[in-house]
Amino acid sequence: MLIPIERRGAKPVFRQIVDHLRRGIEAGRLAPGARLPPIRALARDLGVNRETVADAYRELEALGLTKSGVGRGTFVLPRAAAAGEARPAVERPFHPVLSRTVGALGALPAVDYAAGPGAVRLERVPGCPSHYPADEFRRALAHVMRREGRALLEYGDPRGHEGLRRVLVERLARAGIASEPDDVVVTGGSTQGLAIAARLFCDPGDAVVVEAPTYPGTFATFLAAGLRLAPVPLGPDGLDLDALETVLARGDVRLVYTMPTFQNPTGISTTLEHRRRLLAITARHGVPVVEDDFEKDLWVRGRVAPPLKALDRAGNVLYLGTFSKALFPGARVGWLVGGRRLGEAAVALKRSLDLASSPVLQAALAHFCQSGAYDRHVRRLARELGRRLDAAEAALAEHLPEGSTFTRPQGGFVLWVTLPAPLDTLALLPAARAAGVVYSPGQIFFTDQRRSPALRLSLAQADASEIARGVRILGEVARAALARPRAARVVHEGPRIHV
Amino acid sequence: MLIPIERRGAKPVFRQIVDHLRRGIEAGRLAPGARLPPIRALARDLGVNRETVADAYRELEALGLTKSGVGRGTFVLPRAAAAGEARPAVERPFHPVLSRTVGALGALPAVDYAAGPGAVRLERVPGCPSHYPADEFRRALAHVMRREGRALLEYGDPRGHEGLRRVLVERLARAGIASEPDDVVVTGGSTQGLAIAARLFCDPGDAVVVEAPTYPGTFATFLAAGLRLAPVPLGPDGLDLDALETVLARGDVRLVYTMPTFQNPTGISTTLEHRRRLLAITARHGVPVVEDDFEKDLWVRGRVAPPLKALDRAGNVLYLGTFSKALFPGARVGWLVGGRRLGEAAVALKRSLDLASSPVLQAALAHFCQSGAYDRHVRRLARELGRRLDAAEAALAEHLPEGSTFTRPQGGFVLWVTLPAPLDTLALLPAARAAGVVYSPGQIFFTDQRRSPALRLSLAQADASEIARGVRILGEVARAALARPRAARVVHEGPRIHV
Repeated sequence: MLIPIERRGAKPVFRQIVDHLRRGIEAGRLAPGARLPPIRALARDLGVNRETVADAYRELEALGLTKSGVGRGTFVLPRAAAAGEARPAVERPFHPVLSRTVGALGALPAVDYAAGPGAVRLERVPGCPSHYPADEFRRALAHVMRREGRALLEYGDPRGHEGLRRVLVERLARAGIASEPDDVVVTGGSTQGLAIAARLFCDPGDAVVVEAPTYPGTFATFLAAGLRLAPVPLGPDGLDLDALETVLARGDVRLVYTMPTFQNPTGISTTLEHRRRLLAITARHGVPVVEDDFEKDLWVRGRVAPPLKALDRAGNVLYLGTFSKALFPGARVGWLVGGRRLGEAAVALKRSLDLASSPVLQAALAHFCQSGAYDRHVRRLARELGRRLDAAEAALAEHLPEGSTFTRPQGGFVLWVTLPAPLDTLALLPAARAAGVVYSPGQIFFTDQRRSPALRLSLAQADASEIARGVRILGEVARAALARPRAARVVHEGPRIHV
Repeated sequence: MLIPIERRGAKPVFRQIVDHLRRGIEAGRLAPGARLPPIRALARDLGVNRETVADAYRELEALGLTKSGVGRGTFVLPRAAAAGEARPAVERPFHPVLSRTVGALGALPAVDYAAGPGAVRLERVPGCPSHYPADEFRRALAHVMRREGRALLEYGDPRGHEGLRRVLVERLARAGIASEPDDVVVTGGSTQGLAIAARLFCDPGDAVVVEAPTYPGTFATFLAAGLRLAPVPLGPDGLDLDALETVLARGDVRLVYTMPTFQNPTGISTTLEHRRRLLAITARHGVPVVEDDFEKDLWVRGRVAPPLKALDRAGNVLYLGTFSKALFPGARVGWLVGGRRLGEAAVALKRSLDLASSPVLQAALAHFCQSGAYDRHVRRLARELGRRLDAAEAALAEHLPEGSTFTRPQGGFVLWVTLPAPLDTLALLPAARAAGVVYSPGQIFFTDQRRSPALRLSLAQADASEIARGVRILGEVARAALARPRAARVVHEGPRIHV
């Protein structure tokens, strides 16, 4: 069987296989009862990894289109069965009526991060729980509920709590961003900001530029909006702007999504010059930019350029911020900043998605900031983060096998480690977990899910001594794997980010 | 100028005008500098109301395609100006790059509900603020923050707080709905539940059946998902099932959205027989049903049939519930209930939209329910609501002009009043506001925004004596308008709901 595979396309290879086979089944070219090629044979024919084909077959089965049995192969189901007769009665009719949109989300991979209780967890970025100012926030919450509890239980302003928007405007001004409360829309974390941005600028079928690698949560957000992902490589200095020009010249891109400061997953911050060029290129092509400044307040060292939004003279940047990283994620409060007119359009989308965010938590956050507690917290956290970054870099320099590289972020929780090329960090993860360290394999940060020798370390949930221990274990596991090269072979090497 | 208008289509007439003119401008048939016909002339040519044309012209201007000046007419802008040169610099580039999706939202009408401080407000349905158990909820919030504050500030489970899902499962069981915690997904109000449902079952371009009249907030939610609205008339007994059959036979409908209990805006509850027929028809066509049971706990009198979800043997119903009406809206907590597999797909969409809802408020609501405070609150509120419904019905029977009708709901906050046909309740609203009563004109509840002699009264924010006074004023205003028939003439009469 020959399936045309576009290796550099925005669509993951396994999804291309699923879609091709699904179309064949739906069009009747693959008749009920037909047997699909064995996984091993199809993988060989297509020149792809066996797991890729296995994933595609699993997805077809999940879609109710095929049935596999161990040792028996995979068969196309008859229509009636595809409509659900092989499933438990209660769930039957939902399956064939699910949208293509949600089908695309179901295809996103899941990685097993389970590890023993003593393991050093370097994979999660949900703020820094040991430093959450839980007591101070509890008091802020109690204060606003006593003072205006009944009013806070009403529907809030869809733009967000006015007091909080005033606080945000003042904080934005410190970063060089001029705005007014009506330019700000409070969102359910940056994720909702991104969900709004996707619908604000793009219609289904449009393409959006994402950095490669990037935060993988955006894949689901963009796919759910019906968008195609156009990855542009990230170099050691940030987004490859020549590659960006080439992609924008295609004409189907309606949005560029970027994290110029403490990028996730690499920790890279771009220079002032890079930011100016990015703004010039996107303005020339008339494509708006979403700037995700998710860790802005986690500045540790060196000089970081102002946000794109502060440099933007063309009015081409939609800015996203959040309390989730520098403070804590459980309030689910982020914000977007455009101009006033853009704000109105964003509010219409916000209303369509969940009407408004809860005034209760917004009022508490406003009080928390106004009382000075937020600034005190961020200063404390940045000092701790400095200790963690120092510990991580010292340990990485000492313990990684020769040929490894890593980024040296100026702030934020994450850094990006590239192991010697034969290693595949997804294949390496079970051994690392067993040995007592958990990280995020590089593969998950790429739209094409290419196997990668890179990985992301997050310093959010481990202190300096734990980080040192975790990195030492990582080094041992990597060296052991290099001694057994077949165990963790890289199929497609990801782009390497050198420092 | 001749624009083909489809009066019974899903698309509002004014939107049809906008789209036609926009296509003309974009294709160059209407060249830069061309003058559009005067509003009065185009309205006459098309046989539509002048406001409809005026709205379309305002929208074209908002889209940056035309420019109007008082007494000068409306002109097509040149491309460069359409790209924003006529606008303030900071907002310039956003405008032409906004999506068609958000353009559709911008077209939804806004009604002016402003009124003096003494006015009786019968237009809002955000729960019943005078009865919010604010102190008890504040204590529940303080309790959970003391007990597990730090954990609640983490990212929550995307399905929702487990304790709350257990509470919901127990409450669903009382309504005859068998579920397990993993079948439930907590949402940001019913609106987010609906936003998820729209993307779960439909892809952009698909059609969704809505009741006519229905809650107009759904229009934005469905339009933002790229869906077309297929209105099906509501009769005195609920959705017109013969009309539903006809619409489903078209084959482009992927979802039916219905409120079988205390429907918004009419207050109608359907019979057991009606519910069974609705389930049979939709199952036969393989089209899933979203049941919005937003006011379930506001039962006052008579016998209300079990929810569709409790009667559904085919597994064809996605159920939506919320705390926003029976308790308060400020927590932004609702829920959806499907089967387990459906739940997984819904969670993937939830994650794509805002990752998860805040655990803080969910934990507080769980504690509030477990302590018995919710049941006490609902009993108290239902007694009060009974007094308000009695007052409303007595006043309506006494004060409405001859030929008026109104519904007699078994619970919930809203009822539907139909004035004698020559009256247009949108045109009547300024006089009513000036006289001291505010209601929701029937027009806003229809997808085609047809002028309507009907209106919705909400009993959420006025007590029995205020309601009696408000209805008396409404009767006086209606009688006065009937004496001046040209002042408030109905152009298209809406469907009349008789009881």
